[in-house]
Amino acid sequence: MFDCGKIAIIGGGSWATAIAKIVVGHTHHIGWYMRRDDRIEDFIRLGHNPAYLMSVRFNTDEIYFSSDINKIVQQYDTLVFVTPSPYLKSHLKKLKTRIRDKFVITAIKGIVPDENLVCSEYFHQVYDVPYDNLACIGGPSHAEEVALDRLSYLTIGCADREKAHAFADVMASQVIKTKTSTDVIGIEYSSVLKNVYAIAAGICNGLKFGDNFQAVLMSNAVQEMQRFLQVVHPIERNVVDSVYLGDLLVTGYSNFSRNRTFGTMIGKGYSVKSAQIEMEMIAEGYFGTKCMKEINRHCHVNMPILDAVYNILYERISPQIEIKLLTDSFR
Amino acid sequence: MFDCGKIAIIGGGSWATAIAKIVVGHTHHIGWYMRRDDRIEDFIRLGHNPAYLMSVRFNTDEIYFSSDINKIVQQYDTLVFVTPSPYLKSHLKKLKTRIRDKFVITAIKGIVPDENLVCSEYFHQVYDVPYDNLACIGGPSHAEEVALDRLSYLTIGCADREKAHAFADVMASQVIKTKTSTDVIGIEYSSVLKNVYAIAAGICNGLKFGDNFQAVLMSNAVQEMQRFLQVVHPIERNVVDSVYLGDLLVTGYSNFSRNRTFGTMIGKGYSVKSAQIEMEMIAEGYFGTKCMKEINRHCHVNMPILDAVYNILYERISPQIEIKLLTDSFR
Repeated sequence: MFDCGKIAIIGGGSWATAIAKIVVGHTHHIGWYMRRDDRIEDFIRLGHNPAYLMSVRFNTDEIYFSSDINKIVQQYDTLVFVTPSPYLKSHLKKLKTRIRDKFVITAIKGIVPDENLVCSEYFHQVYDVPYDNLACIGGPSHAEEVALDRLSYLTIGCADREKAHAFADVMASQVIKTKTSTDVIGIEYSSVLKNVYAIAAGICNGLKFGDNFQAVLMSNAVQEMQRFLQVVHPIERNVVDSVYLGDLLVTGYSNFSRNRTFGTMIGKGYSVKSAQIEMEMIAEGYFGTKCMKEINRHCHVNMPILDAVYNILYERISPQIEIKLLTDSFR
Repeated sequence: MFDCGKIAIIGGGSWATAIAKIVVGHTHHIGWYMRRDDRIEDFIRLGHNPAYLMSVRFNTDEIYFSSDINKIVQQYDTLVFVTPSPYLKSHLKKLKTRIRDKFVITAIKGIVPDENLVCSEYFHQVYDVPYDNLACIGGPSHAEEVALDRLSYLTIGCADREKAHAFADVMASQVIKTKTSTDVIGIEYSSVLKNVYAIAAGICNGLKFGDNFQAVLMSNAVQEMQRFLQVVHPIERNVVDSVYLGDLLVTGYSNFSRNRTFGTMIGKGYSVKSAQIEMEMIAEGYFGTKCMKEINRHCHVNMPILDAVYNILYERISPQIEIKLLTDSFR
């Protein structure tokens, strides 16, 4: 049986914090890379992440913190990357040690900018990590609910089933159910696409469409996702599994989703810029939309929802016009 | 091209009223059977249904009302049945004329009690209506949103594609998009099952499960639906089409769904009786659960969600115990 060895978390946001809570509850030791030393100091002083999921208390004796990514990579066997996708490259540029022999797990819901690759492909192509050493974490999971110990289901994807099972065992608990898959690339793409579709759901909400239409939008979204996945990574998969459909639903139906909120503001008439200023942040799906549009230029899949969101966000075409066209394309 | 001829609505509830609004907007004449003469008098006096969707105004010159089902059946060619399923048999018992040559459309989301048949099967077996003359209306559609002219998508199922198209044309408008299907029985069963799953969603909500779990529940529900439909009526269908998945989502995610509300009360600890008294009505899915359980005794499909809801509602097993078992069965 494969052993994950010593596990480290790379990243300090809410999903990183939720995963750290899950893992350390099982292993009683983790490494944790955070970029900012002041955040690490505050974390140790307070006993919780000073900026995210502040209700989750940690025994900091069980954590080795470092703002030096090389120290973490040298000392740990399994590296769980949970940074926002736009910052992944800048973190990795600091690496002076090889990571090809590590077990690299990505829980990043995004595309590597400029490269237009999902994270596992990027680690494989640029850092020579073999696919058997690459895994991902997917599934419907608001970090906030994991923090509250609300029952959640996660899927660990890895081409090497034994490794997937090993990490699934590390994450499983009374409140976290885990399963495994070999569809790493499909899971990564679906976790990007669901953010695009959550923006679309928000836009329609902002335009005062109702629940009947939202249900049709979600049905068409999962069909669009299915079409894309079958072209980009054609393997047998059941798109109504919770790691695909469930992840789409939890984002598309949630009022807490930043992507959906961003879309709602766009639908109400905010410009992209003013929505971003109002939210004091940039929704991941904003970048994901552009990346997916570029990737699909080579895949040629019929993706009317992606096209509509792209045209609204990047071509400044009015939401009314784009969504009207979309409604005509739906079945 | 098939002509639907003169169209009549059988039933006076909110979905009947929404369908009447859609049809009369196109045809400018409908027949309308309602059981109670006082309701008909009030309707004509007020210009709207006195009890349901009261904001929808009708030109009553365009409506021939009758509380005599035989008068309606004799004078009309296409009969749209929209009564609650528990009352269908008692309405039909009054029939003195044959209906086998009529175009019979059911928009009833339920099973015929005691018979354990979906409505199209009942009309076929008991009233000799050939399957080519039997259609159904499905799709995600809160009547309240149709009343508000919010864009909705409906699917007309009929073994005879030409007839499906003819009635789809009668319903289509700026705010109603229609499509067709030949899967009458699949659509009817899915519209019953979605109420069962909405009760399950409510129970889990009442037990304080969160959005992450709700997404997993819905993913498993659509898989359970798919398994059942493939056994009871094995044809090629895409269960993520809006008529199946969309209808499930609009009910399972809506706080306005009576079935979901009923489930929430059960999850919070109300008895079935006290929940029914509190709601002043009986949720359709309560009957649907029993019928589906009985039908599945012959089909032997693995339906853990149906079983759990049945055990909670009819065997008085505690929601905590049943849902705990369910969570272990989920993927």
